[in-house]
Amino acid sequence: MRKEKDLLGVMEVPEDVYYGIQTLRARENFPITGYRPHHELIRGLGLVKAAAAQANMDIGSLNHEIGEAVIKASLEVAEGAFNDHFVVDVIQGGAGTSINMNANEVIANRAIEILGGRKGDYSRVHPNVHVNMAQSTNDVFPTAIRIACLNVADDLLHALNELKSAFQEKAREFDGVIKMGRTHLQDAVPIRLGQEFAAYGQMLERDLRRITEAAKSLHSINMGATAVGTGLNADPIYIEEVSENLRKVTGLPLLRADNLVDATQNTDAFLEVSGALKTLAVNLSKIANDLRLMASGPRTGFGEINLPAMQPGSSIMPGKVNPVMAEVVNQVSFQVQGNDFTIALACGAGQLELNVMEPVVVFNLLQSLDILRNVIKVFKERCVDGITANVERCRDLVENSVGVVTAINPHVGYEVASRIAKEAIVNGRPVREIVLERGLLTSEELDLILNPHEMTNPGISGSELLKGVLPRGH
Amino acid sequence: MRKEKDLLGVMEVPEDVYYGIQTLRARENFPITGYRPHHELIRGLGLVKAAAAQANMDIGSLNHEIGEAVIKASLEVAEGAFNDHFVVDVIQGGAGTSINMNANEVIANRAIEILGGRKGDYSRVHPNVHVNMAQSTNDVFPTAIRIACLNVADDLLHALNELKSAFQEKAREFDGVIKMGRTHLQDAVPIRLGQEFAAYGQMLERDLRRITEAAKSLHSINMGATAVGTGLNADPIYIEEVSENLRKVTGLPLLRADNLVDATQNTDAFLEVSGALKTLAVNLSKIANDLRLMASGPRTGFGEINLPAMQPGSSIMPGKVNPVMAEVVNQVSFQVQGNDFTIALACGAGQLELNVMEPVVVFNLLQSLDILRNVIKVFKERCVDGITANVERCRDLVENSVGVVTAINPHVGYEVASRIAKEAIVNGRPVREIVLERGLLTSEELDLILNPHEMTNPGISGSELLKGVLPRGH
Amino acid sequence: MRKEKDLLGVMEVPEDVYYGIQTLRARENFPITGYRPHHELIRGLGLVKAAAAQANMDIGSLNHEIGEAVIKASLEVAEGAFNDHFVVDVIQGGAGTSINMNANEVIANRAIEILGGRKGDYSRVHPNVHVNMAQSTNDVFPTAIRIACLNVADDLLHALNELKSAFQEKAREFDGVIKMGRTHLQDAVPIRLGQEFAAYGQMLERDLRRITEAAKSLHSINMGATAVGTGLNADPIYIEEVSENLRKVTGLPLLRADNLVDATQNTDAFLEVSGALKTLAVNLSKIANDLRLMASGPRTGFGEINLPAMQPGSSIMPGKVNPVMAEVVNQVSFQVQGNDFTIALACGAGQLELNVMEPVVVFNLLQSLDILRNVIKVFKERCVDGITANVERCRDLVENSVGVVTAINPHVGYEVASRIAKEAIVNGRPVREIVLERGLLTSEELDLILNPHEMTNPGISGSELLKGVLPRGH
Amino acid sequence: MRKEKDLLGVMEVPEDVYYGIQTLRARENFPITGYRPHHELIRGLGLVKAAAAQANMDIGSLNHEIGEAVIKASLEVAEGAFNDHFVVDVIQGGAGTSINMNANEVIANRAIEILGGRKGDYSRVHPNVHVNMAQSTNDVFPTAIRIACLNVADDLLHALNELKSAFQEKAREFDGVIKMGRTHLQDAVPIRLGQEFAAYGQMLERDLRRITEAAKSLHSINMGATAVGTGLNADPIYIEEVSENLRKVTGLPLLRADNLVDATQNTDAFLEVSGALKTLAVNLSKIANDLRLMASGPRTGFGEINLPAMQPGSSIMPGKVNPVMAEVVNQVSFQVQGNDFTIALACGAGQLELNVMEPVVVFNLLQSLDILRNVIKVFKERCVDGITANVERCRDLVENSVGVVTAINPHVGYEVASRIAKEAIVNGRPVREIVLERGLLTSEELDLILNPHEMTNPGISGSELLKGVLPRGH
Repeated sequence: MRKEKDLLGVMEVPEDVYYGIQTLRARENFPITGYRPHHELIRGLGLVKAAAAQANMDIGSLNHEIGEAVIKASLEVAEGAFNDHFVVDVIQGGAGTSINMNANEVIANRAIEILGGRKGDYSRVHPNVHVNMAQSTNDVFPTAIRIACLNVADDLLHALNELKSAFQEKAREFDGVIKMGRTHLQDAVPIRLGQEFAAYGQMLERDLRRITEAAKSLHSINMGATAVGTGLNADPIYIEEVSENLRKVTGLPLLRADNLVDATQNTDAFLEVSGALKTLAVNLSKIANDLRLMASGPRTGFGEINLPAMQPGSSIMPGKVNPVMAEVVNQVSFQVQGNDFTIALACGAGQLELNVMEPVVVFNLLQSLDILRNVIKVFKERCVDGITANVERCRDLVENSVGVVTAINPHVGYEVASRIAKEAIVNGRPVREIVLERGLLTSEELDLILNPHEMTNPGISGSELLKGVLPRGH
Repeated sequence: MRKEKDLLGVMEVPEDVYYGIQTLRARENFPITGYRPHHELIRGLGLVKAAAAQANMDIGSLNHEIGEAVIKASLEVAEGAFNDHFVVDVIQGGAGTSINMNANEVIANRAIEILGGRKGDYSRVHPNVHVNMAQSTNDVFPTAIRIACLNVADDLLHALNELKSAFQEKAREFDGVIKMGRTHLQDAVPIRLGQEFAAYGQMLERDLRRITEAAKSLHSINMGATAVGTGLNADPIYIEEVSENLRKVTGLPLLRADNLVDATQNTDAFLEVSGALKTLAVNLSKIANDLRLMASGPRTGFGEINLPAMQPGSSIMPGKVNPVMAEVVNQVSFQVQGNDFTIALACGAGQLELNVMEPVVVFNLLQSLDILRNVIKVFKERCVDGITANVERCRDLVENSVGVVTAINPHVGYEVASRIAKEAIVNGRPVREIVLERGLLTSEELDLILNPHEMTNPGISGSELLKGVLPRGH
Repeated sequence: MRKEKDLLGVMEVPEDVYYGIQTLRARENFPITGYRPHHELIRGLGLVKAAAAQANMDIGSLNHEIGEAVIKASLEVAEGAFNDHFVVDVIQGGAGTSINMNANEVIANRAIEILGGRKGDYSRVHPNVHVNMAQSTNDVFPTAIRIACLNVADDLLHALNELKSAFQEKAREFDGVIKMGRTHLQDAVPIRLGQEFAAYGQMLERDLRRITEAAKSLHSINMGATAVGTGLNADPIYIEEVSENLRKVTGLPLLRADNLVDATQNTDAFLEVSGALKTLAVNLSKIANDLRLMASGPRTGFGEINLPAMQPGSSIMPGKVNPVMAEVVNQVSFQVQGNDFTIALACGAGQLELNVMEPVVVFNLLQSLDILRNVIKVFKERCVDGITANVERCRDLVENSVGVVTAINPHVGYEVASRIAKEAIVNGRPVREIVLERGLLTSEELDLILNPHEMTNPGISGSELLKGVLPRGH
Repeated sequence: MRKEKDLLGVMEVPEDVYYGIQTLRARENFPITGYRPHHELIRGLGLVKAAAAQANMDIGSLNHEIGEAVIKASLEVAEGAFNDHFVVDVIQGGAGTSINMNANEVIANRAIEILGGRKGDYSRVHPNVHVNMAQSTNDVFPTAIRIACLNVADDLLHALNELKSAFQEKAREFDGVIKMGRTHLQDAVPIRLGQEFAAYGQMLERDLRRITEAAKSLHSINMGATAVGTGLNADPIYIEEVSENLRKVTGLPLLRADNLVDATQNTDAFLEVSGALKTLAVNLSKIANDLRLMASGPRTGFGEINLPAMQPGSSIMPGKVNPVMAEVVNQVSFQVQGNDFTIALACGAGQLELNVMEPVVVFNLLQSLDILRNVIKVFKERCVDGITANVERCRDLVENSVGVVTAINPHVGYEVASRIAKEAIVNGRPVREIVLERGLLTSEELDLILNPHEMTNPGISGSELLKGVLPRGH
């Protein structure tokens, strides 16, 4: 054990750990969730520290030997070499000071080691003086959050794009499968299964656009803001350099915010991103619900499609297979929506120069990004890609439906169509049969009118039969 | 009373009303909130009906005499002449069929009147056959919602822009007012009141951008989709024309959706708009909270600014004035956030070819747009425009604060600065006094270092005194 | 027009209105929703004012002639005679001061009239001095809210009890209807339709208990608290009397809060009630979803039950009937859940001695109570009462299902049962047929095992066939 | 590696792990959050399995040798000996089947080991046949959830009770500290700091009552329900016994649900508990906000109380200490409110005989219970217990305030009081000074009227001076 000291007193720190007294205090103060910081957040912190050290060296504020050691240590942190030494809880008071100090302490101790010193000898490299030089938690933490979120968002967008493509692929595969469209869960008019899957793809296309747009709001960073955004004690040249360095080291299109005061106190960019994720979550849930409905059965449900069997469904009912991949999509959707609520509450709790609730914001935002990415991947691979259609069942339902009377409407008039519909419903007979029996249309004419492709595209099905007839409005 | 009939039977309708039996049924079925449809939604419905009638006439489906009467009646509805005859509840089952039928019936009866007939004589003009020709609630209602929302959103954006300008104006007015910045509600370092107000303006600038962007998602309409988006029974030429007509008659940049199936079943555009409003709501609440904090007092609070007195604050405490305009902003914010929750639930409840929950979506979305617009207007005029600063109080707080020691830091070193801070806190003395007493800096040097403009802008305050000194990290 | 004056200046008030200058100011300050105060809230205010005037007379603080006039006027207000004169917006700043003053002014002017004076002559009866005597908005408004909520909650509980009974009645009616149970929307094992309806009734029974319990938290009132709960300027005898008077005049079991400071600043009772309503809302939505699923069809869905047709479902599809009453239940549920969110935000925004956000709380809470009561009534009368079962369809689905193999399990062993299940699924054959074909059980034995009553009650179906056999675990 | 087989095929399982193929599949299917099941949930599962095995043995369904081994293994699981072998994700599809199978497999393999066999040799003890005998995930999982939640809730109630007592203790300690009460953040009338702390205690008293009540709804369990609540294949004696056994082994007052169908499909009990937690969360947040406000400063805020310093507040500002323990309370509150949203969405997604979303429900519910308990403990120990009052500052603020004029009101009349208030505000003078200067009251009289105890208790302060005078309403 080594002894470390801060303004509140002395504590013993285990010899082998890289963090120090302030991290220890935070662990004691915040034994809340038991979850540790996200590895992408640690990575973001490491990159911020490296970029700041470089800028401080460049303007002559930071001694080169120390600076190089700090940069080396910071990059090791960024690569994940010290993830086990990031031990503060994800939910913490102090607006992120504890995780910033955790980074400062780990980097300082590692830099000391690099310079040949012993961990804890902060006269060599000091967590606050050198590692945190010209920085404040209030600019470091929001910047690291942005880097972390952008990196996970990138993965998410990639996965989402693949899912969209999977739906488009299925849309092509199922383009010929005619089935009953339903509104209010009641039989409506025919549609093609491929059209439904194309609609899912189209919706996800919008989600891609929305998330991409929202993520842009994260490009604006506030390095150099220091405590309240005024930049007190931060050299203007340093301010320019640090953002430039960070752009290079992260490969992200980061930009210094126009108004650092605003950028330090306001968190609406996180809420904007969360809002886009929430919309995606709602959309995914709708798709999952539809798939579960269409796959309901096998005997007593809709039975239109089959989801691939991923695991036995029941210990008590032999042969049961459940739509587990769709169900996990629903649950992730609920989680993301709840997270968005938490984020909104936290973003609404900013006061004056700072929003001290950022730790709970980033915990929820990174979780939403993570679980969406994760679930989208398995949903695509283990569900969507393997969906098959029960073509015959779909066709039978259309043929037995009353809804096709809508297509016959323009050919026999609304009044006659209504009487056919009524008889079909009351006596449980197919519409086609009744029409033929009454001699209203021939079998050939019906083939034309009830042609799947015609019925599921704009226009009056079998309109060539009408030649000059104005069936409606006269 | 006149008698009307539908497939469920006959009902008596008062002679003087323009609506008919289906509206009557809906009134009986849905006595829920007691609120009637929004006038902008009625306007949207009128315009949709006029545009559709014109397109139907143009392709020869609708008789010209009837068509002209329907268009005239529809435009009268759009102008609000029949608002009292829109009597269905805002929350209703049936996915909006009732309000669509309310419009169809009112327009049909008015058109009959125009043609010299008697209300209820649907052989002249029929609500379904003529007014609703080639339409379905499932394309009419979402389109009318979009028109209504775009029109109110336009007003909102205008009001929001004015509020932003008001904050920018105040930012200029207060640019010279130096005050204490606070983080964690604890004294931090100085800032200018103008910087705070500029930050509010900057945040609202982002809200303007976000709402403008989100509103674009409403430009895509699904006229011609009919029941499930396949366009069954809608002529392709009609489909093109109706959107074009609607663009003209509304003056809005409406576009036919690429994928009508998707556009008919998915409601994520509404959720996207609501999400942007929610972010604005959270931001407004933050501003209102800050203003209430800074105006707290008059004797026992922060007392930095004064909000204009708009009404007596208490019946029991003489002379009390409360920040009522900021408080109403908070409450509108809470309402809009709750509305967003309702909208998310409803948007997540879509099934297969339709989301039948649209009535509750549009009720909440239009309410959010309305109350945000309304509150922003009065907040600007009755609060923000009249804010004054207590310049002296602000300056005194800075001078008595310990936080200014941060600016002195680079000139005396971190260790010495810490000792000064400690003495200042323990003995309640001004930092300036201690520095002078100890002979660390002269009064002239302190004037330079504690220069308000320097302290509240990037860089080391009084850096000219340091000439070549590297105060930190060495 | 008459002139009135307050500390901010003079305004003109229309001669015929009973409200005065402070109400006028509030109208100008808060043109937010356009909705006026709930009639039950006005009633609550009238009763509070009458009870307070009586107590003030009794302790000799209020002149009897004035007191009697104030009581008479207050009771007229309570009866709704002046509802049109309550014109302040439901969302308002000032913690309810404006609606309290609206009541004070209306009652004062009416009392002046009763005493033969002219409206506006506050030297006769003064809104603050006489009508508001020994009161503060901070005790009057929360008390009036409680009275209003309790009265509407009472109606709601009555309606809910009727709905519960309706489900229990249907449970009896459908007790013999055997149908397929579904888990994960996949065929599981048989259940009786009556059991499902009994479960709905049981769930609502819990909601009745929860709402009843939560409403008790509203019984505690803080009359006599005055501004911050300390009771400054309120005579202790008055404090006792006013609660006692209010208990009498309202007929509600109201009690003075033990701790008036707590009772004045905290609003958790409202959140508690809203939470109970939210749980009811979620439960109702689940029921509505189930009914819509079971009624899906008529041809291409589950088709197990029929909901009564309340209105034509579509203008374009002849014969379509939609589950509109269930859909409106869903939407009310979403609204109530959103309202709960708003209420939580507002309740969480209390600061120190007061929660100034109460106006938006009561707006949402009364709306939730109202719309739940309203929708429950129509849902019962226009939907649940008229539900019928498709007995034959339900039975066919059971007989064709694979799930019944679970009942055969104990008689033939898990391995054999699994093979039967597999063949049934692959070849689309009934389980019964396969069992008979293979000679595993006789038709009589199958009748016993597949006996509906047996299969849907605890125990091994046909266990008498097993006599001493231990089919599992050996 | 050993080979295991299920209906989907064969997989290789590491030799040393106790779980089997179905757990492996679940890990592959659900790589969502990376979080593993809560140890209390594992404990609950172990106890359920032991209780069921005992009941099955008692009715002769389960061989004694196997039964005893299963019980021993189950109790080891309950004690946490195999927590590392519970590896399925907290968010999973399949309604908990995966975690139930994880338990079944671990227990089976451990029982096999106890009986001298090799892991994977399910002919000795079978996960489904023996461990899961007469059970279904649909009764096991909800029951285990209830046991887990009750146990954590018990800890939470204990911690909450301690916090309540801490506030009551502080209420006594601060009973003599007179300070300014504030409404709307504006100076109101005096109050005692002890009264404020007593109000916090009183509010938490209600939370204790609410959570205790809500937790009772968890006592009702559905063991014996099997797949859909009908109890198919579960012996009636077993059903009675298993609940009785579980009551003994857990020490909890568990009861078999009256209606097993209802108890299997409905999850409103979880929502009820979450709702009570949410109300607590909102209340805690209000307290934390108040403490942060009262501790704001040290120089430029309210400065009425001091929160104990738990860690350095800033790396850039020497001497800064932040209210970190209050801030973490706020964040936990936001998390719990978000979790409640997720739970509501999941509880609302039940369909027919089952709510398959229970995994995400229990993840959030246990997290809410955990983090509330954790934060309440540290909040009490590291914040509330150590709060001190700045008595002098509090008194100064009262004496300099204008609000005390309210107490003088009854002695000098409303008109005179108003003039005093006005002069005090405009010229920044103490009310006492003006009253003395004008000779309205003597110093002795003022001592009596402005007596802290009098001013902060019900009644007219200094009422003995009024003898028979009726100051108001005449």
